[in-house]
Amino acid sequence: MRLDNVGRSANRPTANIVAEALIKTVRIASSIEPLPLPGESNGLGDGGTTVAFEGCGIASWSVTAFLFDLDGTLLDSVYQHVLSWREALEAHDIQLSVWKIHRKIGMSGGLFTQGLLRETGRPLSPELIAAVQEAHAEAYQRRMDQVRPLPGAQELLDHLSSVQVPWAVATSGRTGSAAAARRFLDIPLDIPVVTRDDVEHAKPDPDLFTEAARRLGVAIEEAVVVGDSVWDLLAARRARALGVGLLSGGYGEDELIRAGAYRVYADPSDLLAHLDEVGGRRVGRERDGQR
Amino acid sequence: MRLDNVGRSANRPTANIVAEALIKTVRIASSIEPLPLPGESNGLGDGGTTVAFEGCGIASWSVTAFLFDLDGTLLDSVYQHVLSWREALEAHDIQLSVWKIHRKIGMSGGLFTQGLLRETGRPLSPELIAAVQEAHAEAYQRRMDQVRPLPGAQELLDHLSSVQVPWAVATSGRTGSAAAARRFLDIPLDIPVVTRDDVEHAKPDPDLFTEAARRLGVAIEEAVVVGDSVWDLLAARRARALGVGLLSGGYGEDELIRAGAYRVYADPSDLLAHLDEVGGRRVGRERDGQR
Repeated sequence: MRLDNVGRSANRPTANIVAEALIKTVRIASSIEPLPLPGESNGLGDGGTTVAFEGCGIASWSVTAFLFDLDGTLLDSVYQHVLSWREALEAHDIQLSVWKIHRKIGMSGGLFTQGLLRETGRPLSPELIAAVQEAHAEAYQRRMDQVRPLPGAQELLDHLSSVQVPWAVATSGRTGSAAAARRFLDIPLDIPVVTRDDVEHAKPDPDLFTEAARRLGVAIEEAVVVGDSVWDLLAARRARALGVGLLSGGYGEDELIRAGAYRVYADPSDLLAHLDEVGGRRVGRERDGQR
Repeated sequence: MRLDNVGRSANRPTANIVAEALIKTVRIASSIEPLPLPGESNGLGDGGTTVAFEGCGIASWSVTAFLFDLDGTLLDSVYQHVLSWREALEAHDIQLSVWKIHRKIGMSGGLFTQGLLRETGRPLSPELIAAVQEAHAEAYQRRMDQVRPLPGAQELLDHLSSVQVPWAVATSGRTGSAAAARRFLDIPLDIPVVTRDDVEHAKPDPDLFTEAARRLGVAIEEAVVVGDSVWDLLAARRARALGVGLLSGGYGEDELIRAGAYRVYADPSDLLAHLDEVGGRRVGRERDGQR
């Protein structure tokens, strides 16, 4: 059975559409049985996903994939990034309050640097931007021994893998960030880790998340984007994904809700405890005798 | 002329009372002339303040005094404090996410440490609390060269002095914090700087602010408490002062409003630009021929 599209239309309020999609996903997920891990998958349309399973033909099912931001969402690294940016900016005679840096963390490094320099009214030569980015990378490298996985991050990822829910990581950091992710978290090699180097535009553009969904072979509209910053949530909205906010990057709850978070949890551990609220149930093969 | 009390009553909504008090203060302030700096002052009642001026008898006037928190309000030091607490906790094998530490900054060190240890479920021996506090002080000392005054902090304080508005600093830090304040800011020696060591209970108890008001000789109910954390604003409410929030400590705007902020500004510079909105006008001697 091919699942119907959820029936999005530009004239209907987003909240209703999201609620319907969730209800539908959960209803479907509840009525079907566990399924072996997909060997290969292809996104088809924006309502359901058709997945090819080796040795068992074609099964159609709706699945909520999870696309995770990295810093502040899986890793407790935001405050180290913030003070590294501060150090890098000061090294180039740019004075900026630390809280303003914090509120821009999670944008792409280029946009971030441009935004900060615009606030200071300094001219934005590409050389200066590159130099500040390099100084940040160096300063963060020195602080990386203070970075830890957030509570429940590994357990959440392991749980999703064990119940065969597709997931990926999408970070505004460069390829080095992917290496950092693997230093702190056990991420299987077949899990996509999309970085700034893989896409043309980073957050708040939606490219990182749409690319992650593409690599998973799932429709972005069926995916849940989990992030700690308003930039993750704005990117999620632009991608038409469902945004879920975590407080673990230091933003306030209302800031995340105003940016479009459907739900806000404290950290990965709290999200894991409430996974059913965001459609993260065990999904499996449908047995309806129609094929 | 002795000013009437604003007429607070437990049955009236706080917002109305606050608005009335502000309107009254601004109206009074607008109608009167500049005044020489008080040589001595005494708080009398909770509606107006009677101040004795050397050589010119007794003048009665309503004045909005400003009581400032230090870290995150006048100094850009919160993120350095946060990572210093993190380091101190880890040194004692206490793992806690950095954002949770951030959200407790501004409480008294003792309450803060107890709160953090309670979250981790560890037993709270006084020795452990003292050891963590000492490790924090040492770690913060190492980071203090990264601390800066917040934009507009010195200008705001200088402006208040120049227009003869009383002001004081009230910090949950120990006496060492007062020395730090004077390292980064030019605070005249006759300005009260109240620290944790001067009162029995620190924020969110109101003692720091009531003590600061007492030293200024102003009624706490006529004072504006300026702080970056919800603990400042809760303490302000408990003291029946007017709370004004600043974003410069990294809390979100809604968090501060929910905690009771009457207004929220970005930083001291932004507050200075909008000082008339919180009753911070030039106040002076009343000439009404009634005395």
